[in-house]
Amino acid sequence: MGAHSHSDSFSYRPIGKYDFEEFIDMAIRFHNYPAPGLLVGGYMVEEAKRQIPRGVLYEAIAETGWCLPDAVQMLTPCTIGNGWLRVVHHGVYGLVLYDKFTGEGIRVWLDIAKFPKDSEIRTWYLKLRPKIEQDSDRLRHEIGMLGSDILSSGPVKVRKQHLGKRSKGRIVICPGCGEAYPAKDGNVCKICQGNTLYEPMPGMPKGGFLTGSHPEA
Amino acid sequence: MGAHSHSDSFSYRPIGKYDFEEFIDMAIRFHNYPAPGLLVGGYMVEEAKRQIPRGVLYEAIAETGWCLPDAVQMLTPCTIGNGWLRVVHHGVYGLVLYDKFTGEGIRVWLDIAKFPKDSEIRTWYLKLRPKIEQDSDRLRHEIGMLGSDILSSGPVKVRKQHLGKRSKGRIVICPGCGEAYPAKDGNVCKICQGNTLYEPMPGMPKGGFLTGSHPEA
Repeated sequence: MGAHSHSDSFSYRPIGKYDFEEFIDMAIRFHNYPAPGLLVGGYMVEEAKRQIPRGVLYEAIAETGWCLPDAVQMLTPCTIGNGWLRVVHHGVYGLVLYDKFTGEGIRVWLDIAKFPKDSEIRTWYLKLRPKIEQDSDRLRHEIGMLGSDILSSGPVKVRKQHLGKRSKGRIVICPGCGEAYPAKDGNVCKICQGNTLYEPMPGMPKGGFLTGSHPEA
Repeated sequence: MGAHSHSDSFSYRPIGKYDFEEFIDMAIRFHNYPAPGLLVGGYMVEEAKRQIPRGVLYEAIAETGWCLPDAVQMLTPCTIGNGWLRVVHHGVYGLVLYDKFTGEGIRVWLDIAKFPKDSEIRTWYLKLRPKIEQDSDRLRHEIGMLGSDILSSGPVKVRKQHLGKRSKGRIVICPGCGEAYPAKDGNVCKICQGNTLYEPMPGMPKGGFLTGSHPEA
């Protein structure tokens, strides 16, 4: 935090029930470093939570895979693995929390029209200078001072076709590798169809994706 | 945990440095409930970590979006938001931890050939009975007793084209909505191209995705 954190002449905005400094510690533990996108994301998630009526069971959409999904996972019950958080790669710092039954919710986004002129947050968000020339202490200071002042928000409604529980459907045994997979994926599992990002190495035991029917075998 | 948790005649396998019961508490806090897929996922992640040489900077691939990504996020520094965890939807309980520079790593998967006959874990994984008729106490007991005995593993190498840092590239201002977006997405941002899962509601302020150029406006 540099010299800023030792001054008493200002105070950072809390992120929900956490002090800004507490949230930075949480960010280091979960995300490995207090990325600017995660810190602004904290304010975004809390702003959306504030506007969602109490008691509503909500799910989340993050409009970028950069940092923002982790703010959602840290501050709400929605995670990638439980399926209540969806990440869509639309390249903007926007997120939606919505009623999982009705689809009604709140969209919050980082609004560049609200960024102070010559601020480090503008430099960072618009990449006006290379990362190495950015002042990360000043950037973090600005984020903590501005809090939700640089956000905009408004109501949205998630379309019906995107609501409802995800389902794997019927499970069958793959004739290629002998493992279980969702029948809807095809006649053999997706791995035996060649969908891997990697190749097996010498010493890979039989089973799993290394079989006679596998295109890489 | 039912009656099983009060017995002293057996002990559950630890998940890395955590007791099985501790990991269940962590699973409830992060994932909202101790899903079977998350518990087996815990053993899978720890098995892969055990086989990765110490000091290697690794990244992760989860081969299903069901539960498994959360085990990775709970037990490694890799998260969706920091980009060190990738989720591919191949429908199998498999995961890879790999050296982010060389691509060399370990694949671990749930191996149905190692499931005991008539086990609840077989019933669960192959969906042999509807969820409502499954015995979740017995299932959890089996998972804690079997630990990594039902896993297989082997070396893999992530292909070169999938290695390397993700990059947003150049950032530009969208002529549609005035917000910043990655230039590589096109002439207007993806939101202004109509890529939303939701529609704006009355009261949505101007800015963000509700603009004259937006197909839904």
